[in-house]
Amino acid sequence: MVELDALISKLSTLGFNKVPVEHSAVENVEEWKKALGTVSNGLPENYVLTKTLIYKPKQPKSEPFAPVVIVAKDDTVFNSKALGTLLKFKDMRFASEDVLKDTFQTVKGSVSPFVLGNVSSEIIGNVRVVIDKALVNENNIAFHPLDSLRTVFISGPTLKAYIASIDGLEHVTELDLASLAGAAPAPAAGGSTKVAKKPAATEATVAAKTEESAGSSKLGIEASKETDFSKWYQQVVVRSDMLDYYDVSGCYIVRPTAYFVWQQIQEFFDAGIRALGVRNCYFPMFVSQRALEQEKDHIEGFAPEVAWVTKAGTTDLAVPLAIRPTSETVMYPYFAKWIRSHRDLPLKINQWCSVVRWEFKNPQPFLRTREFLWQEGHCAYMTKDEAYTEVLDILTLYRRIYEELLAVPVIEGVKSEKEKFAGGVATTTVESFIPATGRGIQGGTSHYLGQNFSKMFDVVVEDPEGTSTDRPKIHVHQTSWGLSTRTIGVMVMIHGDDKGLVLPPRVAETQVIIVPCGLTSKHTDEDRRRVTDACLTVEARLKKVGIRADSDLRDNYTPGFKYSHWEVRGVPLRLEIGPKDLEKQSVLSVRRDNFAKASVALDKLESTLEILLHTIQDDMLIRARKAFDERVKLVLKWDDFVPTLNSKCLTMIPWCEREECEDQIKARSTRDAINDEAEDEKEPSMGAKSLCLPHNQPQDPPIIPGQTKCVQCGHNAKRYALFGRSY
Amino acid sequence: MVELDALISKLSTLGFNKVPVEHSAVENVEEWKKALGTVSNGLPENYVLTKTLIYKPKQPKSEPFAPVVIVAKDDTVFNSKALGTLLKFKDMRFASEDVLKDTFQTVKGSVSPFVLGNVSSEIIGNVRVVIDKALVNENNIAFHPLDSLRTVFISGPTLKAYIASIDGLEHVTELDLASLAGAAPAPAAGGSTKVAKKPAATEATVAAKTEESAGSSKLGIEASKETDFSKWYQQVVVRSDMLDYYDVSGCYIVRPTAYFVWQQIQEFFDAGIRALGVRNCYFPMFVSQRALEQEKDHIEGFAPEVAWVTKAGTTDLAVPLAIRPTSETVMYPYFAKWIRSHRDLPLKINQWCSVVRWEFKNPQPFLRTREFLWQEGHCAYMTKDEAYTEVLDILTLYRRIYEELLAVPVIEGVKSEKEKFAGGVATTTVESFIPATGRGIQGGTSHYLGQNFSKMFDVVVEDPEGTSTDRPKIHVHQTSWGLSTRTIGVMVMIHGDDKGLVLPPRVAETQVIIVPCGLTSKHTDEDRRRVTDACLTVEARLKKVGIRADSDLRDNYTPGFKYSHWEVRGVPLRLEIGPKDLEKQSVLSVRRDNFAKASVALDKLESTLEILLHTIQDDMLIRARKAFDERVKLVLKWDDFVPTLNSKCLTMIPWCEREECEDQIKARSTRDAINDEAEDEKEPSMGAKSLCLPHNQPQDPPIIPGQTKCVQCGHNAKRYALFGRSY
Repeated sequence: MVELDALISKLSTLGFNKVPVEHSAVENVEEWKKALGTVSNGLPENYVLTKTLIYKPKQPKSEPFAPVVIVAKDDTVFNSKALGTLLKFKDMRFASEDVLKDTFQTVKGSVSPFVLGNVSSEIIGNVRVVIDKALVNENNIAFHPLDSLRTVFISGPTLKAYIASIDGLEHVTELDLASLAGAAPAPAAGGSTKVAKKPAATEATVAAKTEESAGSSKLGIEASKETDFSKWYQQVVVRSDMLDYYDVSGCYIVRPTAYFVWQQIQEFFDAGIRALGVRNCYFPMFVSQRALEQEKDHIEGFAPEVAWVTKAGTTDLAVPLAIRPTSETVMYPYFAKWIRSHRDLPLKINQWCSVVRWEFKNPQPFLRTREFLWQEGHCAYMTKDEAYTEVLDILTLYRRIYEELLAVPVIEGVKSEKEKFAGGVATTTVESFIPATGRGIQGGTSHYLGQNFSKMFDVVVEDPEGTSTDRPKIHVHQTSWGLSTRTIGVMVMIHGDDKGLVLPPRVAETQVIIVPCGLTSKHTDEDRRRVTDACLTVEARLKKVGIRADSDLRDNYTPGFKYSHWEVRGVPLRLEIGPKDLEKQSVLSVRRDNFAKASVALDKLESTLEILLHTIQDDMLIRARKAFDERVKLVLKWDDFVPTLNSKCLTMIPWCEREECEDQIKARSTRDAINDEAEDEKEPSMGAKSLCLPHNQPQDPPIIPGQTKCVQCGHNAKRYALFGRSY
Repeated sequence: MVELDALISKLSTLGFNKVPVEHSAVENVEEWKKALGTVSNGLPENYVLTKTLIYKPKQPKSEPFAPVVIVAKDDTVFNSKALGTLLKFKDMRFASEDVLKDTFQTVKGSVSPFVLGNVSSEIIGNVRVVIDKALVNENNIAFHPLDSLRTVFISGPTLKAYIASIDGLEHVTELDLASLAGAAPAPAAGGSTKVAKKPAATEATVAAKTEESAGSSKLGIEASKETDFSKWYQQVVVRSDMLDYYDVSGCYIVRPTAYFVWQQIQEFFDAGIRALGVRNCYFPMFVSQRALEQEKDHIEGFAPEVAWVTKAGTTDLAVPLAIRPTSETVMYPYFAKWIRSHRDLPLKINQWCSVVRWEFKNPQPFLRTREFLWQEGHCAYMTKDEAYTEVLDILTLYRRIYEELLAVPVIEGVKSEKEKFAGGVATTTVESFIPATGRGIQGGTSHYLGQNFSKMFDVVVEDPEGTSTDRPKIHVHQTSWGLSTRTIGVMVMIHGDDKGLVLPPRVAETQVIIVPCGLTSKHTDEDRRRVTDACLTVEARLKKVGIRADSDLRDNYTPGFKYSHWEVRGVPLRLEIGPKDLEKQSVLSVRRDNFAKASVALDKLESTLEILLHTIQDDMLIRARKAFDERVKLVLKWDDFVPTLNSKCLTMIPWCEREECEDQIKARSTRDAINDEAEDEKEPSMGAKSLCLPHNQPQDPPIIPGQTKCVQCGHNAKRYALFGRSY
């Protein structure tokens, strides 16, 4: 990263001979001007302010990533679309926070031409830099060198010399940007002078905010689930108030609507494991390096993603501490201590916590986040049978969470050797599927760890069957199992539609939203009052029977606005109440999942709505299961394999279960996919992985041992395996 | 910290000329011998193994901390008590993990004489080193230089030269340790050759484990609550299975018994805040430096304790990330984003999470831990009145948690300016009291933040009362409030007795434990079966009415053992069922809180026990409140102030509320206290702080404005204030 001293020293070799002036943090040009006005020393008599904008144009994915950096006079207005056309880019979009961080090592509010010095040698050759002609003859051009607390003044020639000094930078253009002014000026967001007092907005949040400020018509979802899934997903999770972006990349805010779903899962699962005798507890989030590295295979799987604490206050820690990526090595030293005799078995504990896995892949809300919420259960048994029974009991609970709470169908099975949990013996899993992208997604895993960890951590008891003189040590059989907030992402992806989120009633914080309607200027205040009272009465009656109902009585919004508002947020059922409904002693119900309308007699309100909510819940699962089933294709010859993937399906194949074969399947499906042009930019043409060996094996045709061959390699097939592209 | 290269280089200047040999990790002398047996190069023909033991003798607190380091031949057996007498120490106790870390920068299993090189210059002058005479003429003495994976062999003279080279070390003795052998050999734990495969045990856990292995008679609590409160507390929390020590100093494992209490608090509080319209959510644990430092007063309060993540995998982060010590600066940038209009107010959210405050003071289970669980609520309102109403509503919920769930009385009030939350306007608090030590303890705080944070983070709405042309910006009024697992420590300290934990029924995971008894060798198997069946029937009947009952049917323990077992663990009610009870169609109940026994007719089992559990709950609060009330003393002249503190009471004084006066009170009560010899070592003669200005002010005598004077300084008194020594 560019350091201030290094930067100043570099600039000084380019004709720059002043020190930066310091001032208070500024948030916009007005404040910048004002702040500079208070500076007493080092200020030039005349100067111009600037903005540096970074775009990531939409490109065919065959082309390399080519960000565009615009360095402009602050008051230059230009048409970014026209600029895009000039540069031969179709769509000029502001770069996301991730691009700012990953490519330019900067954040909103600190952008200046000097961030070009941070770009890696692989990328710099593709960066386009555009310098506003209005700047090049200026003597004192103001930039924030590293943050908005300082300003340097450099001349046009120094600016150009600096840019010319960047190794590997090829595309630099001077342009009369003002000549590109047009009907659509660049949005104010993303300017150079906004400090990060308010959180750095990503592309998605900038868009959402801009539109939401612009009026009701833009509160909804614009992207199509079918044709622009990534953008659709981003819009849905943000605009439904499920989640917000956070100023630490890869971390997200789980907002109340989403957290409510998580609490429903917690309640259900807590009751389920309590019935199995599992008790909740809490272990520290910090792990010493020694404990972390006790189990070699296990740590190999996690080491590259471990976040390390090395400092407290201003003191360096004597020994760095890891933040748990999972708690096997946190807990099992204490299992060794607590388990002294077979009478201490089984030991069954669970904790609800967050874990940190600092992945460097693209983060995605709920699905891949650097910190996420989960539960992790850890149990120890005397025998394998007991342990494995529990592994499956837990898997059943996971399946029920998906199916009964989230209305998401899953396939239960066991992972291949390649895909199983690092350090365990067998990983069972529930696998789901996102029809819109044709990709499988792991829903939750329950591991049989065998005696591997108990040997590493010396968790032993004396054999109670032994004699008094001969009591051999037995290493306990262990399990661990985890389910995370990824569940919420899967639910959103499966049920959401082009109007926004669709929540299954069981996990919806608001199950029924009551909206007064049908009131016109012809109606009296008395009419209005009667409708309002009716809404409140209905709300109270529903709450009394345990239905989570709310009324939207805001008087400054139209019914239509309110309908959209709650549709985006996925409320399962809307009740419309107007004067005509009241005359008929009924209300109108509108389902979120299929927009079916029905009149509900007020005297049967509670019972009708209870049934209706159950019906919605059931229908959502039935519909999702149908979509899943249709996309799981039995594939019996290799030629059909990649085309099946490309038609957004999963494949069920007779498989040999060899790791080598799994690698070949991945390689062959990756290569073949590259020739396929149809895919969306955000869905890489990844190879297929084995998702699971389903517990429920297809029977038509059955696998005949020694006769049925593996679809890929021709070795003997052992079982059917579910393969697919996946998250 | 001593590094291997530096150590070897230092040793080489002292006559050492070999390289350390490497081997597998070893856990005891046998393994060490065996491991060295497999080393092919660099091994001397003859060598002796060693143990290095570190003690922290009990001392009068007027004397400086003086650890003792014993370097002995591994097979030298000596009497540590005799050694203590020789060194003029009363009680030779093994040093705790914290001492190993903080003073010697080492951990169990890595102790060697070389850790002396890690001791700070302030302490080294008080360290006593004892060298076993059996070593000084040896040629090849084996030590683990840094960990148990390596061994160096040095001669007696080199060892002595090394020890002599330590700057500032004054007390070095050679002793024929074997001559101190006696009836009480040093315990095996704490030896030099145990690697940290199992967690490093602290003094408390070593003791607990040793004793629990030794048989039933030592499962209970040995320390007296009255005379050795610190040790008593440590024993109770560990032996009741509430908590265990962890191998990262200042972090503890919250075991299921304690976590159950926390879940009861969560359930109660969640329902309470839901009724107030507060919604749960989850914000990331990481804070960027910029956000953290936005509010200056606030960060000043927390900066020295902030833990920093600087690395992920092997990659240095571009910008270090703080782990939240609290979430004001995490959340409020998003408040600024989400609150766009007065219609978005109030915004009320809460999260359950853990926070990290890396305190360098002595950690204490539940009370002062580097990571702890809590909830933090954050709300924003249009007006001060609304905000302050909520501050008090929350305080009421905190009081009810203490009183109704934990049977702990509290005093509600507001903090002095000096003690209030950094960055806020006013802090309300519930204050409790530990009679055994006479110290107050803050129970939970609810802050009115005013507009301070909203100004820093620019959380504004337009005044809805404004005209269409003049809508001034209003900064919102904010609150924040938090309650932590400290609650559990307070509950343990207040109710526990010399037999162990005493749990209030409402938060006890097991409310009733059923123990079969009265069976002798004269009874038949049929008798036994009848008693067992009766236990299970009673258990089932109680569970059916929602009483958390369990039966202890383990056949290898006596009833007496079981009584103690559940008494240590604080189960509120024991039912004893024997053949004679069954004849009378009754069972015997024994209360944990006061050991009162009563016969319970089986036909009135459920109703009797429901009443009994309520009575226990109520009695515990009444008893605790009486103890609290008796120790809050109205003090009207300064001469009584310190003597009142010294009699383990809190003082209620007319006070001027000036910060200067508060400082003076602290200074004067500290100085005066030093002359008092009676205090326990672990309770420093700290000065008194203001605990709160109680909402419920004493009326007899009332404060007469302009007339009543401050007890300390004679300025006009404004209100009564509660002062005391505190945690």
